[in-house]
Amino acid sequence: MERTEIRKLYEDPSRYTVSEQTVCGWVRTIRLSKTFGFIELNDGSCLQNLQIVFDDQLPNFMEVSKLNVGSSLVVKGNLVLTPQAKQPFEIKATSVTVEGTSTPEYPLQKKRHSFEFLRTIAHLRPRTNTFSAVFRVRSLLAYAIHKFFQENGFVYVHTPIITSSDCEGAGEMFRVTTLDLDNLPRNNDGAVDFSEDFFGKSTYLTVSGQLSVETYCMAFSKVYTFGPTFRAENSNTVRHAAEFWMVEPEIAFADLKDDMELAEAMLKYVINYVMENAPKEMEFFNNFIDNGLIERLTLVKDSQFEHVTYTDAIKILEKADQDFQYPVYWGCDLQTEHERYLTEKYFKKPVFVTDYPKDIKAFYMRLNDDGKTVAAMDLLVPGVGEIIGGSQREERYDYLERRIKELGMKMEDYWWYLELRKYGTVKHAGFGLGFERALMYITGMQNIRDVIPFPRTVNHAEF
Amino acid sequence: MERTEIRKLYEDPSRYTVSEQTVCGWVRTIRLSKTFGFIELNDGSCLQNLQIVFDDQLPNFMEVSKLNVGSSLVVKGNLVLTPQAKQPFEIKATSVTVEGTSTPEYPLQKKRHSFEFLRTIAHLRPRTNTFSAVFRVRSLLAYAIHKFFQENGFVYVHTPIITSSDCEGAGEMFRVTTLDLDNLPRNNDGAVDFSEDFFGKSTYLTVSGQLSVETYCMAFSKVYTFGPTFRAENSNTVRHAAEFWMVEPEIAFADLKDDMELAEAMLKYVINYVMENAPKEMEFFNNFIDNGLIERLTLVKDSQFEHVTYTDAIKILEKADQDFQYPVYWGCDLQTEHERYLTEKYFKKPVFVTDYPKDIKAFYMRLNDDGKTVAAMDLLVPGVGEIIGGSQREERYDYLERRIKELGMKMEDYWWYLELRKYGTVKHAGFGLGFERALMYITGMQNIRDVIPFPRTVNHAEF
Repeated sequence: MERTEIRKLYEDPSRYTVSEQTVCGWVRTIRLSKTFGFIELNDGSCLQNLQIVFDDQLPNFMEVSKLNVGSSLVVKGNLVLTPQAKQPFEIKATSVTVEGTSTPEYPLQKKRHSFEFLRTIAHLRPRTNTFSAVFRVRSLLAYAIHKFFQENGFVYVHTPIITSSDCEGAGEMFRVTTLDLDNLPRNNDGAVDFSEDFFGKSTYLTVSGQLSVETYCMAFSKVYTFGPTFRAENSNTVRHAAEFWMVEPEIAFADLKDDMELAEAMLKYVINYVMENAPKEMEFFNNFIDNGLIERLTLVKDSQFEHVTYTDAIKILEKADQDFQYPVYWGCDLQTEHERYLTEKYFKKPVFVTDYPKDIKAFYMRLNDDGKTVAAMDLLVPGVGEIIGGSQREERYDYLERRIKELGMKMEDYWWYLELRKYGTVKHAGFGLGFERALMYITGMQNIRDVIPFPRTVNHAEF
Repeated sequence: MERTEIRKLYEDPSRYTVSEQTVCGWVRTIRLSKTFGFIELNDGSCLQNLQIVFDDQLPNFMEVSKLNVGSSLVVKGNLVLTPQAKQPFEIKATSVTVEGTSTPEYPLQKKRHSFEFLRTIAHLRPRTNTFSAVFRVRSLLAYAIHKFFQENGFVYVHTPIITSSDCEGAGEMFRVTTLDLDNLPRNNDGAVDFSEDFFGKSTYLTVSGQLSVETYCMAFSKVYTFGPTFRAENSNTVRHAAEFWMVEPEIAFADLKDDMELAEAMLKYVINYVMENAPKEMEFFNNFIDNGLIERLTLVKDSQFEHVTYTDAIKILEKADQDFQYPVYWGCDLQTEHERYLTEKYFKKPVFVTDYPKDIKAFYMRLNDDGKTVAAMDLLVPGVGEIIGGSQREERYDYLERRIKELGMKMEDYWWYLELRKYGTVKHAGFGLGFERALMYITGMQNIRDVIPFPRTVNHAEF
């Protein structure tokens, strides 16, 4: 069907005054006088509605007058500029065709709904202003990430979702199986016989693509993954989902400093892209979700990020004139309260904390010359705390071997990962950005369930 | 580290002759004379190697002379144009730093390796020419798909990977669970108690995002998914993987004709993008993988696709002067041999086959007025057969309800899908493109295992 998207009308209304237009969409509101009426029509191409004016010249004026909110229409008519009115233009309808009716039971009547309620109708909530904005920005943010990496010569790698290895030796993982649970095959000793499973062994959903993507980094120098990852953590918080998307770049011939430069450049690029390409949505978030949002993002975009070592950060926290719930000492894991103090109160801007104690970080991080810290970095941002975590990787075979053994992990599970250190190993580094965390940060939304189309959390896999 | 990517040198070599350059990469070959030598260095930024010339002026000439293939280097030197030589330029090394050595056991010595062997070293195969080309094109193709949809106003939707519904009522699915298989919770009747599972019920890996994305189509008008999908099919063929990526656009206020126009425009756009952005890789595939490749893709890119109804296609096949393995009759499913006859022998170009019998298609496809066919389309292309499958969706509540009941499916499993037909239903359509199928088509690669970084198939989930 030849139709004009409402977004196009807003981009350049005067272009569309010369001929009759066909617009389509869903009725957001309808107001009626005796012989005419107004419809706010939304087609999802932008946040704004289009005002339709219709009158009793329409042969189906009665039908249109009785429409319920949520009905879908095809409207033909002429665009009239209305510089004196609230909206810059309207369409004077010459015909209104009802594609699909709605009913008074339509859950999205014109009133405020709680986010909790809207989660129960996740199939309809993108028809509200808030979720229309959130998911349009989600799409733009995903694209901005690809654009940044592609324009900088990175190769996008689809690392496997189903895996037989546990990347960090830590995560709680979901099992993937085709075994009939009512009739499990068993070994002689009575244990479940996973050699009968689809892949001939136990398999799980990935918790990170990092180890896999390192192999490709050793071929392409600059790579990134962007895909779903999974944690079977039983944590019912506003920041945890069982299924979420992660961005993981990896760069060769690079150290921690290069890694931080990349993280800073990427974050600034994507914030800038969203602010430029979704100004109305950002304005909406700033007005209705989080009043300081645009100011905070502008600060991040325009500031030089700070750098502090973990050791110095601990000193700062020890001297802080603030009581923390969790005690501060060298060797402790930084909690959100600590992170937020550093980035919001002390530095008042984004800050990289570097060189953490090796015992609170993953096995693959590069040991520093002091023998007790690793070349890790976390980026903390005001309003959120940690948004990016990364490290230089241990590229030295003997150091990596020692660490794997120290932690009681099995060398044979990592044969291919170790081989990267045998054949042309290079200094390399990378980081992980939780996509939903970034999206919450950029939109000001407070609950991860409200930035994922159909969120999966403990006891929730609806739709 | 300040380094120049080899890709940049090839883009504009003369720009880099003025000052000393730092290049990094892995040794592909090394040739030695008495007092000098040549190294072919590859950094993965492009398919081409860079020739490094080094001589005994280097303090570590002996070390460099003895390097094994696969070693990683940081080379400083001056770029010299060599218009008379095979390669357009070379770097005359002033220093060569060995980042990581290799050994004579490095599996990628300079000789031809079978694709079967290379699958066993999937962590190293991107360091070969073929796989370097395949996975660079994979990255570009993924980006081209995003670029096409984003530039055309589509919203990218991450539909859930973990699902409690079976989209097509047909696929063999992987179960996702956190239950302890050695100690399964049971109901009173002895059945496994899935209310104890992580999501409080049985969950699976998605086989398609279509039903989910339709909900977003009813809000944004134009949407697409691009994510991993899973089939637990026990089929050991060159075209099947258990884990693969799928692209699924969905458009509102649109019928089957609009859907085909979109599919044609998208396919042409992405072929064009890859040919323009990876000319060396395409030349490589054309020379070493599939001699007719570029000719075939150019034909597709520049042709107007044909259209034929299923009913007419059956007539054509019945009259064909060719014996088919599978019998042809109205109501039969088209096999690859039939599809290839139509697109390669009869039409000699891409062809949409439309309006299939309803009984061989999915429940959600829109019933045509004849009462026996549905508004479905498959796009067949020379060399492959079906590459895209799509349909107009049944937007009429009563028709959809009848079909769901006819097929013995449960209405309550589709409550949210049915609600889309109750509140402002609209004509809409969409299609699915198997990303790996498209990649095989564009590269000429014959086995799906060779276009996925770490392929998952029956009994295979290595790395």
